[in-house]
Amino acid sequence: MITVEVINTGSELLLGQVTNTHLGFIARELFKLGLRVDRQVTVPDGAAIRGAMSEGLARSSLVIVTGGLGPTSDDLTRDFAAELLERPLRLNQAVLTKLTDYLGRRGYGVSELTKRQAMVPEGGEVLPNDYGTAPGLVMTHRNVGDPPHMPDHVLILLPGPPRELKPMWTTYVMPWLRTHLEMQVMHQRTWRVQGVGESRVQELLEQALRELHDFEFGYCARPGEVDFRLISPDQAALTRADAVVRGILADAIYAEDEESMEQVVVRQSVAAGKTIATAESCTGGLISNRLTNVPGSSAVLQAGYVTYSNTSKTRELGVNPALLTTHGAVSEPVARAMAEGARRLAGTSLAVAATGIAGPDGGSAEKPVGTVWLAVADETGTHSVRRKLSTDRETFKLMASQVALDLLRLSLKYGAARLVDGHGAAPTAAVAGRP
Amino acid sequence: MITVEVINTGSELLLGQVTNTHLGFIARELFKLGLRVDRQVTVPDGAAIRGAMSEGLARSSLVIVTGGLGPTSDDLTRDFAAELLERPLRLNQAVLTKLTDYLGRRGYGVSELTKRQAMVPEGGEVLPNDYGTAPGLVMTHRNVGDPPHMPDHVLILLPGPPRELKPMWTTYVMPWLRTHLEMQVMHQRTWRVQGVGESRVQELLEQALRELHDFEFGYCARPGEVDFRLISPDQAALTRADAVVRGILADAIYAEDEESMEQVVVRQSVAAGKTIATAESCTGGLISNRLTNVPGSSAVLQAGYVTYSNTSKTRELGVNPALLTTHGAVSEPVARAMAEGARRLAGTSLAVAATGIAGPDGGSAEKPVGTVWLAVADETGTHSVRRKLSTDRETFKLMASQVALDLLRLSLKYGAARLVDGHGAAPTAAVAGRP
Repeated sequence: MITVEVINTGSELLLGQVTNTHLGFIARELFKLGLRVDRQVTVPDGAAIRGAMSEGLARSSLVIVTGGLGPTSDDLTRDFAAELLERPLRLNQAVLTKLTDYLGRRGYGVSELTKRQAMVPEGGEVLPNDYGTAPGLVMTHRNVGDPPHMPDHVLILLPGPPRELKPMWTTYVMPWLRTHLEMQVMHQRTWRVQGVGESRVQELLEQALRELHDFEFGYCARPGEVDFRLISPDQAALTRADAVVRGILADAIYAEDEESMEQVVVRQSVAAGKTIATAESCTGGLISNRLTNVPGSSAVLQAGYVTYSNTSKTRELGVNPALLTTHGAVSEPVARAMAEGARRLAGTSLAVAATGIAGPDGGSAEKPVGTVWLAVADETGTHSVRRKLSTDRETFKLMASQVALDLLRLSLKYGAARLVDGHGAAPTAAVAGRP
Repeated sequence: MITVEVINTGSELLLGQVTNTHLGFIARELFKLGLRVDRQVTVPDGAAIRGAMSEGLARSSLVIVTGGLGPTSDDLTRDFAAELLERPLRLNQAVLTKLTDYLGRRGYGVSELTKRQAMVPEGGEVLPNDYGTAPGLVMTHRNVGDPPHMPDHVLILLPGPPRELKPMWTTYVMPWLRTHLEMQVMHQRTWRVQGVGESRVQELLEQALRELHDFEFGYCARPGEVDFRLISPDQAALTRADAVVRGILADAIYAEDEESMEQVVVRQSVAAGKTIATAESCTGGLISNRLTNVPGSSAVLQAGYVTYSNTSKTRELGVNPALLTTHGAVSEPVARAMAEGARRLAGTSLAVAATGIAGPDGGSAEKPVGTVWLAVADETGTHSVRRKLSTDRETFKLMASQVALDLLRLSLKYGAARLVDGHGAAPTAAVAGRP
């Protein structure tokens, strides 16, 4: 069993000036090899690096350190590694030559400081840096009698800049790991679930799935939705699980793995040759903004109307002023008129509309803050739903846009007229459990 | 000397499915109190949390744990804290009532699972969760004879979802820390600078400011802009510095501290009694979306037009088809016509327009990906600028929307007709130094 620890060094990470993207990259890459990061530590530049490396080597069989390989005085990772594994640092001619060439091409000479980057701990394997000066290093620490394929401990040192670390990882680290480490490949599957709470998903699924196989369960909750993840070395078990999960959650599953709701909607629209228009009041352009984040969406989204004022609802979308005065801007008739108006005026296959009270002000007893009416219109007809999203303004907009995109997704599948309270015609256990 | 450790829990972080944004947020907030994070650890859900908490409490005086407070089986942070500090968990009626109300308003009952969130370790202080179900907790572990203002160890448990953690931090954790921890107060001042690079800002300011006072400098670069921060215990020195900074950067400074560009535009529009319309092609609704993120923006934004297709540019904004055929959709005349059309049709004081090539496809030799034309129109006239933003699709949209909002900000100050290449009429050193 290989245990993995990632040590990210750099005071800027602990001051909140830079976000750590190395962990995610390394974790996703290691997962391809069936390896999991068991622990990650961030320490400032300087002596704390030594402590973290020494703890890491005691605890984990694979320790990956990022940063602190540069030429400056606070770049001490290389020295600490040599010290901890008791390997003297020696000037590596090959590295020095590469360094001299690299700097020479840019019109620089090699100073004593930069020369430090050519120092390699005895027995260390150099990972060439094709995009910078500081090479990476692999050091293995093996006890007598360890099986040849499995060193006792592996220490990998990588440069801090992402544009240097990533290519070095792909070109040199991955092949090294594939040849040197024996691993059990793990598989995972993630279902993205819209409109069902985290605990509800657990109630619905865990029992049935535990009977099926000893899965590792994972949940990642976001506003109004949750990612449900299963992990197992048994690919076939995951395939069997998929049938169970889909049987229970059905249409509440809007995507798998990393795909976003807007990517699903654009992909399905392109496949079906459909076009879309948006009519937004409370979401203020977020729906069209999300759709247009997807490359190729220009083939799908024809027009978006951000009709924030009543006047513009009438002027841009032809909403009957009588509807606005009788029912108010946040009402079912207005949401439907907005969707139908947008579809008619833009001449698209589908149109979706959202009108609600984002808050913090503007609520009433009858229509409290968080109330939103959404409608989707297509050639089969118009479907409208009411939701109450009690949260902050921006999250309200995000959740409302997610429901709107989900209405488009389901209309593309069933036709708007066949939806029931914003869901596929056949209510599932998950749906039935909703308010 | 208070040592701080942040423990982020969640397998999704170590699987690389979610990027850790909590560390940066907490680090920046603690900095306001003169505290720095000495160490950060990420551990998966489950037993590893206990180990990390126990190590953290041994090593640091303030330990902040995020995540693992939810209702599901892998939410164990609360239980481990109770176990480590030897405080029995008791059902907290106040929390249970709040939980019941919260779920009741959403039409849910309280299941046995969700009830776990109402369990509070004896002596723990509850941090209310105004945006979710799981409350936070503060636990202090004091040895006999510790000074009352400074507990030996402070353990703070916070929920994982950012939209729950951030308001809880601001509303409840910061006041708690201010009252309970003794700290040297540091003052800081941050100027948000648009359209001037980080190194250019450094060239322009650092020398002059070093002569003024021994400040600590901070930079936080974002696409197309940078936050310049000065830190000092001497409030008066910061006030003197402000005059120097504003003298040099002038209109390139769009805000101070945390205020966003959209907040500035809405605030200034409300103050001036002006209204706004948006005409968006490449930004796809991002400009209106950002404006409508600001509470009270409904008084300002009257209408937004997302005219993605040429047809909709003509139909919605009355752009002359001849302009589109002669100059193409991404051109100065079309940008100007979009802004003027939006202003005329919506009858607003100002309108801003953006048309460009977000990519990854659609570029040409003459108009490469990243090319964008922006225009702002008001009663004084119309001003248009061209920018080349070579980056990924979403960053392109973000940067283009930032330039568009900046055009609104400067038009509100000078009038569109008096702008020079998207800047105030009087070019500053910073502006003059721009490409």
